[in-house]
Amino acid sequence: MRALYWDGHEPRVDPSYPTPRVDSKIEDAASRIVRATGTPPANENEPSALIQVHLAGICSTDLQILKGYMDFKGVPGHEFVGSVIDGPKDFVGKRVAGEINFGCGACDACARDLSRHCARRKVMGILNADGAFAEYVLLPARNLHVVPESIDDEEAVFTEPLAAAFEILMQIQINPGDEVLVLGDGKLGNLCAQVLRLTGAKVTALGKHADKLALIKKAGVRTIRLDDWERRLFDVVVEATGSASALELALSAVRPRGTLILKSTIAGIHQVSLATIVINEINLIGSRCGPFPDALDALAAKQVSVRPLIEETYSLSEAVAAIDHAAKAGTRKILLRP
Amino acid sequence: MRALYWDGHEPRVDPSYPTPRVDSKIEDAASRIVRATGTPPANENEPSALIQVHLAGICSTDLQILKGYMDFKGVPGHEFVGSVIDGPKDFVGKRVAGEINFGCGACDACARDLSRHCARRKVMGILNADGAFAEYVLLPARNLHVVPESIDDEEAVFTEPLAAAFEILMQIQINPGDEVLVLGDGKLGNLCAQVLRLTGAKVTALGKHADKLALIKKAGVRTIRLDDWERRLFDVVVEATGSASALELALSAVRPRGTLILKSTIAGIHQVSLATIVINEINLIGSRCGPFPDALDALAAKQVSVRPLIEETYSLSEAVAAIDHAAKAGTRKILLRP
Repeated sequence: MRALYWDGHEPRVDPSYPTPRVDSKIEDAASRIVRATGTPPANENEPSALIQVHLAGICSTDLQILKGYMDFKGVPGHEFVGSVIDGPKDFVGKRVAGEINFGCGACDACARDLSRHCARRKVMGILNADGAFAEYVLLPARNLHVVPESIDDEEAVFTEPLAAAFEILMQIQINPGDEVLVLGDGKLGNLCAQVLRLTGAKVTALGKHADKLALIKKAGVRTIRLDDWERRLFDVVVEATGSASALELALSAVRPRGTLILKSTIAGIHQVSLATIVINEINLIGSRCGPFPDALDALAAKQVSVRPLIEETYSLSEAVAAIDHAAKAGTRKILLRP
Repeated sequence: MRALYWDGHEPRVDPSYPTPRVDSKIEDAASRIVRATGTPPANENEPSALIQVHLAGICSTDLQILKGYMDFKGVPGHEFVGSVIDGPKDFVGKRVAGEINFGCGACDACARDLSRHCARRKVMGILNADGAFAEYVLLPARNLHVVPESIDDEEAVFTEPLAAAFEILMQIQINPGDEVLVLGDGKLGNLCAQVLRLTGAKVTALGKHADKLALIKKAGVRTIRLDDWERRLFDVVVEATGSASALELALSAVRPRGTLILKSTIAGIHQVSLATIVINEINLIGSRCGPFPDALDALAAKQVSVRPLIEETYSLSEAVAAIDHAAKAGTRKILLRP
């Protein structure tokens, strides 16, 4: 099959990458985990599903990976929508989105429905598992969520990042009238602002780009350009800029005893003054992957608007050019169509 | 009166520093706030109390201040016990400890009993108010807590740092059986470990010094020397080392979705990888001043042992030597007796 392959040096489109298969792939994955960790995965006999990818999205994390983040090698890509063509018969023929963390199925975290924190997890396109920048991708069947008819592919491909935005609501209580600041007007900032708006909180988005802020404003969110920013205090601040340098501004905008949600997964070491966190007793919470059902419900109910976030769709054979485009500052979502 | 004075360059004992007085001092403080903030304090007519200091403790924050932290100038010192010699007659003659944040009394934070987060607050010995390294010190009367007879001066002088340890229990729920790691075997680490032990949690203290760990062990806390540390995961980690470099170890010991309490107030910029916080969805909470009543109750009930933490008591006239001693690595609590 055709796939984008990352060997740790240069991404390239491989027209004859091995197509995964439901049975052999499970054993391959199992033996790969044994090689990596010395421990056989508990889920080696777990049913998998082979998915024909309809659309995949390029995420900032993918760009980090192509700079060496996570030391990943293989096929990147973890935002996708596709159709099941092999695997458990309940799923075959269904259109699905898929959760990206493949837990071992046997540990405490997995037992508590937290496979995304399983210490032995694989993560598609990020850690020990091939991802969705390919014609086909293999996932554990229990990671799949059927996409309702009313959601089209161009919307469903946002399920994963939208779920990440909903994760905030799983972690803290946000009440109507709370003052919330979202830092960053990119894709993640946009989705976070839209999701937080659903709580009835007063949401303000702070960003650099007038055109992107205008998109967010349509969702009923107040917007401020960074050039016009005057320091104010918020109950909750969400850092979704993807840039380490925004942390200081984020901290300065949290009221004493307020909450700062860290959404950007940024590789490397960052400089920060911890004194503000202690003096103002700030609650800083890291936030990663979230609940797919909430994201699909919101898309089905048209509570969140994602289509305007699409910049351009490339064919998979042009994936290298697509990644170059995605890496340009200010680019909205780039999609790949196999 | 005699006082230790810090002019921003060199601490020195001043034998004739102006003795504060109950009335004029209030007006001085008010006018000082007007100069600093342009706003008159709401509490300018609030009753103050003049306290004769019995004992004062030197804290790591004082040592930071004498390196320039907070740009403070004046008399440092915020851990003390003394007797009220002038002010509201309910207090005159009483032995007291005092909360260190002087709120404006009029803002939202003060209305919510959070004067320690009042934006216009003074902080004794730290921000716009003279502290307790002196024969006499002036505090708002509502900051005072009467010290029960059963607590002697050498114990009562620990009320403020012990209250800071109790602050953790005001911020998060710790349950019996929770695995808690306290990082740091110094004074703050010791007090935090003792307080956390009261919850029934399984507390482990990790530190560099065998003698200090032995002190903590007496409180029923497991201890590990840093040389013997092998990474394990804890539900809650308390960073109380006073050193920025411990943050990475602290983060590595928090289980996914666990809590890291930051206790050290450290001036300056620190280097930290934020990716761990996001990937493991860690909850990082800054923690500062805490509830005096809880600390006094614990001292009165002999639930916490503080006397072994005393290294040496100096007379106030030897305060400069006392500070040099306190600044030496591994020193326990140094007290000043005016």
